[in-house]
Amino acid sequence: MTPPRVAAPVGARSLIMDTAERLYATRGLAAVSLRQIGEAAGQRNKSAVQYHFSGRDDLIKAILAEHAEAIERHRLAMTARHGDPDRMSLPERIGCIVLPRIEHHIDLGTPSWYGRFLAQVTVEPALREYAVRAHLDTPSLRRLYDAGASPGPGAARRKDMTRQLIVHMSAELEMELAREQPDPEDAAAAWRRLGADLVTAVSGLVGALGEAAGGEGHGR
Amino acid sequence: MTPPRVAAPVGARSLIMDTAERLYATRGLAAVSLRQIGEAAGQRNKSAVQYHFSGRDDLIKAILAEHAEAIERHRLAMTARHGDPDRMSLPERIGCIVLPRIEHHIDLGTPSWYGRFLAQVTVEPALREYAVRAHLDTPSLRRLYDAGASPGPGAARRKDMTRQLIVHMSAELEMELAREQPDPEDAAAAWRRLGADLVTAVSGLVGALGEAAGGEGHGR
Repeated sequence: MTPPRVAAPVGARSLIMDTAERLYATRGLAAVSLRQIGEAAGQRNKSAVQYHFSGRDDLIKAILAEHAEAIERHRLAMTARHGDPDRMSLPERIGCIVLPRIEHHIDLGTPSWYGRFLAQVTVEPALREYAVRAHLDTPSLRRLYDAGASPGPGAARRKDMTRQLIVHMSAELEMELAREQPDPEDAAAAWRRLGADLVTAVSGLVGALGEAAGGEGHGR
Repeated sequence: MTPPRVAAPVGARSLIMDTAERLYATRGLAAVSLRQIGEAAGQRNKSAVQYHFSGRDDLIKAILAEHAEAIERHRLAMTARHGDPDRMSLPERIGCIVLPRIEHHIDLGTPSWYGRFLAQVTVEPALREYAVRAHLDTPSLRRLYDAGASPGPGAARRKDMTRQLIVHMSAELEMELAREQPDPEDAAAAWRRLGADLVTAVSGLVGALGEAAGGEGHGR
C-alpha cells in the first residue's frame, strides 16, 4: 500500500477501500460510482475518494495489493513447511498454489467481498492484465508453477486453467456463504472442502493434459 | 428473441445488440452507457436503446438468448450423432458439453466479442443468476451433465468447475485472437485446440473428483 499523499484522518483511506470492495462485490463494478463509495464510507467531501486515490483503477489496485500481501504471507509459510518446490509431489505443489487463497478467505470470515471483487476485476478489460500480472502471477506462484513442469505452451494452458478455477470457484462459494450466513466453523469447513476439491481437480486436469500432450508438443 | 415492440427500421434492434456486445466486451460493462451504445449504433434518437429494450439487463438478455440458440443448434446436432447420453463415454459426453460452444466461436470468426461479454455477465451481481440459469443450464446441457453421474453435491461441484473453465478460457482465447488477428484458419485451429484441451482437462478433473469422493459422500 502506498501512503496517503498528505496527512489524513487515520483510517479514512482504509475505510474507503473496504467500502469500495463491498459495494463493487455486491452491486458490480458497473453500478457503483466513486461518489457513492465516498458517501457510503461516511466522507463528507465529495472528492474524498479522488483525494486518497487518483481514480477508480488506483483504488482497485490498492485493494488488490492488500489482499495479495496477506495471501503471500500464507504462501511463504506453507512453502517453507514443504521445502523445495522441485521436490514436492504434484498435490503438494498444487496445494501451495491453491490453499493460501483458501486460508485468506477463512481469515476474512463471512461475509467477505474479496472473492467476488477479484472475479469482476479479472474480466474487466481495463484491469484484467494488471490483475493477472500483479496479483495472480507473483514470484512465489511462478516458482511453484514452474517447478517440475517442462516449459512450453501446455504449461501456460495449465496455469490459466488453474487460475480461472481458483478465482471463479472462490467467488461462487463466497456468494453462497454471504447468502446462507452459516456459523464461522461451517463457513471455514466449506472453504476447506473447496480447497481440497480444487487441489484434487487441478491435479487431475494437470495430469490429464500432461498425458494428452505427450511431451508438450501439442500446439500453441 | 422477442420482436421489437412496434414497427422499427429493419435491423436497428439487431444493430444495437451487436454494438452493445462489442462495446461491453472491449470496454467493460462499467464503462459503457446505453446512450453511447445508441450513438455507436448510429441511432439519432437518444432513447433508441430504451425504445427497443426496456433497459440494460433486457438488452443483455436478448444478446445472450441469440447466442444460446446458435449454440443449442450445434449441441442438438452433435448429441444426435452420438445417441443416448447415458451410453456415451466420459470424453464424448464432455465433448457434447464443451464443443458446441467452440463451434459457435468458429462460426463467429475473429474478432468476436461474445466470449468476453459472457465472462463479464457471469460475474455481474445483477445478471449472474440469470446468465447461469438461462444460458449455461439449458435442458440439453442438464441432460448431458446428469447422464452417468450419481446425483449429489459432488455433481454440482463438477458442473460448476466445467462451466467456469469453458466460460473463462473461451474469453481469454477470444481476447488473445482479437489482439493477434490471425488468419481465419489459424483462429479456427486455436479454438479447436482449446476445445480438445478443455475436453481432456474436464475429463481429468471429473475423474479425479469422482475418485476422491469415493461415492459422492464428501460433504456439501
